[in-house]
Amino acid sequence: MREGFHGQLDAIRGALADMTDMAAAAMERATVALLGADLVVAEDVAAQAGRLEAARRAVEDQTYEVLALQQPVASDLRTMVMAIKVGGDIHRMGSLANHVAKVAVRRHPAYAVPDELFPLIRRMGEVATRMAQSAGAVLHSTDAADAGRLAIDDDAMDGLRRTLFRMLLDNWPYGVESAIDVALLGRYYERFADHAVSIADGVVYLVTGELPRERDEKLS
Amino acid sequence: MREGFHGQLDAIRGALADMTDMAAAAMERATVALLGADLVVAEDVAAQAGRLEAARRAVEDQTYEVLALQQPVASDLRTMVMAIKVGGDIHRMGSLANHVAKVAVRRHPAYAVPDELFPLIRRMGEVATRMAQSAGAVLHSTDAADAGRLAIDDDAMDGLRRTLFRMLLDNWPYGVESAIDVALLGRYYERFADHAVSIADGVVYLVTGELPRERDEKLS
Repeated sequence: MREGFHGQLDAIRGALADMTDMAAAAMERATVALLGADLVVAEDVAAQAGRLEAARRAVEDQTYEVLALQQPVASDLRTMVMAIKVGGDIHRMGSLANHVAKVAVRRHPAYAVPDELFPLIRRMGEVATRMAQSAGAVLHSTDAADAGRLAIDDDAMDGLRRTLFRMLLDNWPYGVESAIDVALLGRYYERFADHAVSIADGVVYLVTGELPRERDEKLS
Repeated sequence: MREGFHGQLDAIRGALADMTDMAAAAMERATVALLGADLVVAEDVAAQAGRLEAARRAVEDQTYEVLALQQPVASDLRTMVMAIKVGGDIHRMGSLANHVAKVAVRRHPAYAVPDELFPLIRRMGEVATRMAQSAGAVLHSTDAADAGRLAIDDDAMDGLRRTLFRMLLDNWPYGVESAIDVALLGRYYERFADHAVSIADGVVYLVTGELPRERDEKLS
């Protein structure tokens, strides 16, 4: 029974890791949709966000079942509490990828992002995607040191967001609608990155039993 | 012991309701700070967000302790799962109120919101505050019908957000920086409202054991 029980815990953690990878793929595709003004890819992202939400519900049901039937304690209980919180993060990551894709849809056939900002937005997409992949890896390894490394990419994301806002506020020549799209896109990538960090924090909680100090950004 | 146990559950639900009220007050004050360009009030909001996060951690610790020591089942277990999720919503609500206050700080001594938009932003603040208060009331009453009524205010918030974006996209005369501030403010109020709805959904889960169908907005 215990064997089966730990198998269930591993299955839940594995499912969350797979879902985090799905979220990474969704944000990668969303950036492709955005920079290519590609409606077909945007549609894929919406479908992916839907699948992610279905997967989240399935994992939540499993978690609830384990809590009810196995009454885990200590680190097993922490895994379950972590699973509930991480499921919420993954759900939001899917929604945020979908928000990015929908900007592309709203401006189609025009491009939502001015040429000059392509490299910056592409970079934000890459960092966001990599952060989600790292969060998925941390869920597999439960290695708190790996979780700490995510903070470096998070700093990179903050820097990219600051650059983006500097460009927006320095005689932006592309009009108000474009400024709003780009500002909101910056926010979506940044929040996506925050959720990847939050997943890694969840793993630290799992391993150490303590929540890492809330990062400044979260209350900022 | 069971008596004490149910006392613990009630204490957790009561604490979450109080925190939701604190979040409502924080957003009300944030709107005052924003529309009055008032740094002192903005500072209050930041302090309130900090207190809210401390309260969230305390409730999470209590929840974890109940899960570990009492091994609740059925609706008691659902209360605990709900508490973990609602704590996350309340944390974000405090952060979003703080985001609104920080827009005021960033633009001080200027006003971040053009006069023409004062009534609209004030209204968004009122609806957001009322939704958080309603979510707090639902946590006290655990009445699923009350939870359903929050959807009406949520529709009102969507309407206000649409009006805001129409104004932004119709020959906005106040420049790019102001457009970005106002667009992000719209997003903060809207997300705050989403979290209030999410808390009410948590209560529905508690009472019925089923999650309400995810609202379109959440994947939109």
